[in-house]
Amino acid sequence: MKFVCSQSDLNSNLSLVSRAVPSRPTHPILANVLMVADSQKNRVSLTAFDLSLGIETSFSADVSEDGQITLPAKLLNDIVSRLPEGEITLMSEETENNDSHIVALKCASGQFQVRAMDAEEFPPLPTVEEGESLQLPIVMLTEGLKGALFAASSDETKQILTGVHLTGTPDSLEFAATDGHRLSVVETTLPPQTDEDNEDETSSEMPNLEGFAVTIPARALRELERMIGNRNESDAIALQVDEAQVVFQLGHQRLTVRKLDGAYPNYQMLIPKEFTRTISLERKRLLSSLERVAVLADQKNNLVKCTFNHEEGQVSLSVETQDLGSAKESMPAEVTGESGEIAFNVKYLMDGLKALPTKEIKMQLNEGNQPVIFNPLGGLQMTYLVMPVQIVK
Amino acid sequence: MKFVCSQSDLNSNLSLVSRAVPSRPTHPILANVLMVADSQKNRVSLTAFDLSLGIETSFSADVSEDGQITLPAKLLNDIVSRLPEGEITLMSEETENNDSHIVALKCASGQFQVRAMDAEEFPPLPTVEEGESLQLPIVMLTEGLKGALFAASSDETKQILTGVHLTGTPDSLEFAATDGHRLSVVETTLPPQTDEDNEDETSSEMPNLEGFAVTIPARALRELERMIGNRNESDAIALQVDEAQVVFQLGHQRLTVRKLDGAYPNYQMLIPKEFTRTISLERKRLLSSLERVAVLADQKNNLVKCTFNHEEGQVSLSVETQDLGSAKESMPAEVTGESGEIAFNVKYLMDGLKALPTKEIKMQLNEGNQPVIFNPLGGLQMTYLVMPVQIVK
Repeated sequence: MKFVCSQSDLNSNLSLVSRAVPSRPTHPILANVLMVADSQKNRVSLTAFDLSLGIETSFSADVSEDGQITLPAKLLNDIVSRLPEGEITLMSEETENNDSHIVALKCASGQFQVRAMDAEEFPPLPTVEEGESLQLPIVMLTEGLKGALFAASSDETKQILTGVHLTGTPDSLEFAATDGHRLSVVETTLPPQTDEDNEDETSSEMPNLEGFAVTIPARALRELERMIGNRNESDAIALQVDEAQVVFQLGHQRLTVRKLDGAYPNYQMLIPKEFTRTISLERKRLLSSLERVAVLADQKNNLVKCTFNHEEGQVSLSVETQDLGSAKESMPAEVTGESGEIAFNVKYLMDGLKALPTKEIKMQLNEGNQPVIFNPLGGLQMTYLVMPVQIVK
Repeated sequence: MKFVCSQSDLNSNLSLVSRAVPSRPTHPILANVLMVADSQKNRVSLTAFDLSLGIETSFSADVSEDGQITLPAKLLNDIVSRLPEGEITLMSEETENNDSHIVALKCASGQFQVRAMDAEEFPPLPTVEEGESLQLPIVMLTEGLKGALFAASSDETKQILTGVHLTGTPDSLEFAATDGHRLSVVETTLPPQTDEDNEDETSSEMPNLEGFAVTIPARALRELERMIGNRNESDAIALQVDEAQVVFQLGHQRLTVRKLDGAYPNYQMLIPKEFTRTISLERKRLLSSLERVAVLADQKNNLVKCTFNHEEGQVSLSVETQDLGSAKESMPAEVTGESGEIAFNVKYLMDGLKALPTKEIKMQLNEGNQPVIFNPLGGLQMTYLVMPVQIVK
């Protein structure tokens, strides 16, 4: 193997795949990145795989000798990220005994020799054989992930709840995540196809999402979010699903992840259809008040009491602790229905408010022990549901 | 106690004194900040003290009622830093039983009540009774701390070595710090007094530093560095010292710290007076090469070998590890004296190179086991000494 590439190409692609390198690999080879140089395509591909999440990427290089090898991902990343911009030459070298391989990395300032491992030992990334590939506009994924990802459970024992559930209708894709305490549901719609799109040969036809349903680990979706972060929102990403795997392909980058097994909870039946009270108020004002009273709520199971007054057109937040003191903030709000009070875990409330995308929001509720939902006023179709906490009198 | 002040004044002064609040207080009162409101001066002062380091500051406020109280520093800081800009009212409130105090904090968005403790319990900051106060230009402290502070020991058992030693001559102040493995010495000089200074009534006469000697804990000096960070370099800071304490006063801010006891090592005798070899080279080039080879040196007691070649006018850095691989970088250098090699702990070398202030530096050495010194070429008077590591052949 021998190729010449730019430091910036090697560095950015190494950083990308390194996200799939496990921090505590179950087998030494998994701490490595697979490097394949192809002289026909004049490209070098990099792959990392933790047996659930795999990331593959490739970049153009001047390949003078085909070959494949695996190299310690962290070490290589640490070296390459510190190299100055410019050309880098990578080549396999012969060693005295044939048990080990050495890869030499040369640049203007010096040279590094890194001990490598055989490419044969590296587990192959799973592929999706059957099934059509859906072309999704990136904007749908961006919106869906921003609104739902944070609500997934980070407790590995909760299995299916550690993922985001995606379901399709003919022209929309719904993202849902819940950890059992709160639920976030975002409905993203396919953009209407314009004449301009039709003229553009590279633009593919809009997919039919009817019947589509899959639960994808939140961890993989966080990497996907990072991957699409600086892409053009109107670009398309290809999505392929089979019995076991989900594959996202974006240009030369591919993310593979094992689906989460099991039935996702029927979350739609948790969302009340009717409400006795509706409160409209300013999102940022509510959020910054919550951040302040949360300082005291920290000491009391994160409990904050929310009082809404129809006559005064006002919402008040309050926290009382025995040891430290108390906090009370009020803000104007449009309250329809009876005045009353309800209590929340302040952290769940803040998480949802941060993800809601609009200036004004609507809060709908019934009696104190029933779920409360938050919607943006205008903009995206999003529902954030929080279970209230019983107020102990 | 009752006063009105701006959120930004209260916030910035609270952040400043909070640096002297111990993270694990030995007595509950030390987790508090002392607040004193003075209606005559229309100022509020804040004090925090961990029994070694104390910080006091004051700001103007509209004080309608004198008083003093102590409040939990972290809680108050957390609340005030989250408040929007604008006026804040603070006042003591009567409670039902006289054992406890409550301070109410009111602002546009709401109100907080914080449980307080008696000011009488708060230990007074030590004062310096005798001794003249030295007026030092801030630039001397800035340069001295930047060049020496990093070399002090962070191992609390090393007592005197956890401080920076300051010694004066009639017109200079020397800062020295060592942790036993390396030593940094910076000599800062009093700026020449110009006519302009004499015309300015506020400018005081230059002090005579002859005979001045004190060892100050590095931790306190880091806070001092932060305190003077955004001040005008030509401003003066007042320094007072007695048997036990050092006090720095800058405007309304005062930092008090207990001196470190014991004799500081006679470091000047460690610095060789004559050298058989001198190497001049570019500081940043050497530093970035070290950062790269350090990736591998990490695996081998941080050892890096430095080879200097008189004929080729070159310095090479190399690291060889058994498991991971090897690294070698070279750079041009002016080498006088015989060619040879020497080994260092790469971390000590990098620390010193980061603190040296010039583009080019000079490295002077004798045989392999004698101290090596680094000086900036031009600019500040600074000496950085590192003990080499024996090369095992």
